[in-house]
Amino acid sequence: GALGGLGLALGLWRRQVALAAAREDEEEKELRQRFMAPPVSGLRELRRRRRELRSRMELLIMETQAEMCRALAALDPGASFVVDSWERKEGGGGISCVLQDGEVFEKAGVNVSVVSGLLSEEAARQMRSRGKSLKAKDGKLPFCAMGVSSVIHPKNPHVPTMHFNYRYFEIEEADGTIQWWFGGGTDLTPTYLNEEDAVHFHKTLKEACDKHDLKLYPKYKKWCDDYFYIKHRGERRGIGGIFFDDLDSPSKEEVFQFVKSCAKAVVPCYIPIVKKHCHDSFTPEEKLWQQLRRGRYVEFNLLYDRGTKFGLLTPGSRIESILMSLPLTARWEYMHNPPESSREAEILEVLRNPKDWVH
Amino acid sequence: GALGGLGLALGLWRRQVALAAAREDEEEKELRQRFMAPPVSGLRELRRRRRELRSRMELLIMETQAEMCRALAALDPGASFVVDSWERKEGGGGISCVLQDGEVFEKAGVNVSVVSGLLSEEAARQMRSRGKSLKAKDGKLPFCAMGVSSVIHPKNPHVPTMHFNYRYFEIEEADGTIQWWFGGGTDLTPTYLNEEDAVHFHKTLKEACDKHDLKLYPKYKKWCDDYFYIKHRGERRGIGGIFFDDLDSPSKEEVFQFVKSCAKAVVPCYIPIVKKHCHDSFTPEEKLWQQLRRGRYVEFNLLYDRGTKFGLLTPGSRIESILMSLPLTARWEYMHNPPESSREAEILEVLRNPKDWVH
Repeated sequence: GALGGLGLALGLWRRQVALAAAREDEEEKELRQRFMAPPVSGLRELRRRRRELRSRMELLIMETQAEMCRALAALDPGASFVVDSWERKEGGGGISCVLQDGEVFEKAGVNVSVVSGLLSEEAARQMRSRGKSLKAKDGKLPFCAMGVSSVIHPKNPHVPTMHFNYRYFEIEEADGTIQWWFGGGTDLTPTYLNEEDAVHFHKTLKEACDKHDLKLYPKYKKWCDDYFYIKHRGERRGIGGIFFDDLDSPSKEEVFQFVKSCAKAVVPCYIPIVKKHCHDSFTPEEKLWQQLRRGRYVEFNLLYDRGTKFGLLTPGSRIESILMSLPLTARWEYMHNPPESSREAEILEVLRNPKDWVH
Repeated sequence: GALGGLGLALGLWRRQVALAAAREDEEEKELRQRFMAPPVSGLRELRRRRRELRSRMELLIMETQAEMCRALAALDPGASFVVDSWERKEGGGGISCVLQDGEVFEKAGVNVSVVSGLLSEEAARQMRSRGKSLKAKDGKLPFCAMGVSSVIHPKNPHVPTMHFNYRYFEIEEADGTIQWWFGGGTDLTPTYLNEEDAVHFHKTLKEACDKHDLKLYPKYKKWCDDYFYIKHRGERRGIGGIFFDDLDSPSKEEVFQFVKSCAKAVVPCYIPIVKKHCHDSFTPEEKLWQQLRRGRYVEFNLLYDRGTKFGLLTPGSRIESILMSLPLTARWEYMHNPPESSREAEILEVLRNPKDWVH
């Protein structure tokens, strides 16, 4: 009786240990297949609160990172991504994936960060582009911010640079109200204009938007042209795409579904363009023009980009992940003005006067 | 009588014409010898109001520009300065001298600007680093700002980058009071540390300061270390020099004499260092480290430098002259950390913990 009972208990315990080990193996396998590294919040924790939007968004940004990294790595077989998981002392952490000096890519970075902690009222106000005021308890606001962001600088001047970023914020006010909003966008920065590529890029983004509301693409296309403006040059950084911030309507679920569509459109809007041009031949003059355009990219990111500024000013932020957006190399020439009717003047014209690519 | 009188008058007139022509020739000759281009305010106007500090300062910045350009051109005989005189629609103008892609210098720019017009109260407040308030008539303040500024980026990684800037401001308040102040500084940014050079550079600046007041060098050396701080990196841009702003005591004349001594020290503190190292041999790895340091230079100038920010925000400012401070080429690598005890780590140590070079 007693021994039989003990045998049964031991058997059950053994089986449970075996099951747990199998589950861990499976999780390990799943992680390796699905993600670049274990998620910041832990897979088990994400499973436990699987219905919460925070968890669903964290899984979405992890998936987007992995999809992008795999698609890029497949095009640059000689190179591979360095994957860094980092922790933030003040709460949370991130995963940075960087491929540097490959055959196809000069620098490709895909970052995920999931951070939380307390914000000052001033910092919270700065985070919302519309500057909504937030009621804090003891001047501090608990917050959670997560996002995936990426900048891809290819080597070949006929392959454009691409940037995307999708992010979610939650801030808890003194009375327990949770303010939440999404932001994001995807935009293209070619060295030379290729109309077919521009149309493909914008059309793919438009299709992602149109599934949700036909008003979205025109609105966010214009927001993108306005946001990526290098004021002192009178030029946009690139040929645009979509950009939005402070998005908190019609409902959390609907905005999440829209952001998900945008995130899923990143690979199809960009990767075909890389494939098409990564073996194009180019001249030293074309490489030089690319380097000058890289200089403009640096000017925008350091002088105007809210994300970069906010990142650099945030205590405990990871500088290397923020400045990963800068190109490997850039160039500034005094008084460089391309001749009229050149291909260099052609792209400048479009950067000065944004075009409608899909009508 | 009448004819004789006419003849005398004609003779006098002819002589005056001849004298005026000779004077113009002489002025022309003097201009060519002394300056890179005719001064913004005109030589005759400067002569007419030769006792005013504005005129004396304009001559000083013109002379400093010419001395520096000649000293640099003598070291890089294959290259020559492009000289651009430009006008500012809102009042004043400038002279930009740029030598690009020479044998010795990657990019050397020496700018003079003399601008005047009306400032908003907000803009005037931003110009004074201490943020003194100024009483305006109808919200507008007549101002005059002039200065010489220069950034020299050599090719050889064993020759440091150098920057200097000396400037003078006048703002007229509603009651007619003229607020005036000087600012300036000279600082060195080596890729590799050479203690002998650092000592020579700082000693030369110290001697210029010591002629006026023994307290100046220590005070402005510290101000320089504090100002050229790249906060997000925890590093200074270079090994410092001197920096001051808002200087309006003990008297206009005494401050001008001090600024003059500093301006006269620019050539002797830097040119011997260029001569000493411009033929040093270097490895591709040393060139690469120089490019990474150039990236930091760009970060400081675009993210923190008050002069650059103020310039880019000023309506009618000349962007090409402001951004002339950026290097021809720069580089950003993800997670670049030089090995311990390397020569790269040696300079980083000094950038993180500024040293006293003259005691």
